[in-house]
Amino acid sequence: MNLIDALNWRYAAKRMNGNIVPAEKIQNIIEAARLAPSSMGLQPYNVLVISNPELKAKLQPAAYNQPQIVEASHLLVFAAWENVTAEHVETYINDIAATRGIPAESLDGFKASLMGIVNGRTHEQKHEWAARQAYIAFGTAIAAAAIEQVDATPMEGFVPDQVDAILGLREKGLRSVTILALGYRDASTDFLATSKKVRRSRELFVDELA
Amino acid sequence: MNLIDALNWRYAAKRMNGNIVPAEKIQNIIEAARLAPSSMGLQPYNVLVISNPELKAKLQPAAYNQPQIVEASHLLVFAAWENVTAEHVETYINDIAATRGIPAESLDGFKASLMGIVNGRTHEQKHEWAARQAYIAFGTAIAAAAIEQVDATPMEGFVPDQVDAILGLREKGLRSVTILALGYRDASTDFLATSKKVRRSRELFVDELA
Repeated sequence: MNLIDALNWRYAAKRMNGNIVPAEKIQNIIEAARLAPSSMGLQPYNVLVISNPELKAKLQPAAYNQPQIVEASHLLVFAAWENVTAEHVETYINDIAATRGIPAESLDGFKASLMGIVNGRTHEQKHEWAARQAYIAFGTAIAAAAIEQVDATPMEGFVPDQVDAILGLREKGLRSVTILALGYRDASTDFLATSKKVRRSRELFVDELA
Repeated sequence: MNLIDALNWRYAAKRMNGNIVPAEKIQNIIEAARLAPSSMGLQPYNVLVISNPELKAKLQPAAYNQPQIVEASHLLVFAAWENVTAEHVETYINDIAATRGIPAESLDGFKASLMGIVNGRTHEQKHEWAARQAYIAFGTAIAAAAIEQVDATPMEGFVPDQVDAILGLREKGLRSVTILALGYRDASTDFLATSKKVRRSRELFVDELA
């Protein structure tokens, strides 16, 4: 399905039917997130994949008991790095050098730019920057799910501290920032399934500057 | 082209050749951004489209003189609402009611949730929330460009205050948060065009919780 048709087809399912999304589709959606660009290519976020029914049930109260948490097939939790450190930069520079077969020293200028961010911003600013990058991957995953004809509910409606505690994210240097519930809509119980999509008109959304 | 192949094909072009992207492709990329989801569907951001060479030249110093600002065919400036207000909510609720042919009063519960955000967060928190939503559309536009085989450089490397001043964004209640330069790579001058893509391995990027 082409992307525009897919985006028109999709909506944020509020109720899902519990059917399982095939592993290949899940892997394609995750791969799209992994291939998404990020500032300077750092990818300062991880994706947690949850399909275990007990773990989903444990998370449900942390998401205001929304039904799609347990009715979804898989939950993708986008977790941004809690901080961005010199160690992260070091690892990344070594990755680039190894992948491209070039000396790490040839990346000294690029490394200095990254270190400028590490040293020039507060802890909280760095987390927020990492969160924004995670949202690029989130948008990419949403597009991928639509193309795969998998319903996807983007969810900010949860208590990050509670989700972090349940999943042990802080110990891993991560903070949950947004969740994508993947599954199949239950059109019989979800009033939104038949509701017309609402988007601001092109006239209001886009400003073409001459 | 399928999305995964398209995402593997794309990279952040540092040099472009000045060729013009056909209007239909630009419109598809913008439409993908317009159809992107956002928290509660509010779409608290606008997209500015710039193709005028003089305006691009004026923006270049505000983007550290990066060449792709003027070598690109079009620049999409993603500008998040500077604040999220009761008036925004009122307009949105009326839009939903009109689009779906339902009374605005039937949306009172939903409206209250939106007003909870308007009244419960600081000005800066609301802007940051709006910025994150803009990044979902940004990620969607990047995916759309790749599928259209249009090169797209995601750019955070600019001085937002300067870009806002040049484009008169503050007067419109907007703040620039990120830019997508659209055009065609110049493989003869861009060393990145032939560099291997670097991404964290699936093992490090993804955590499948049992």
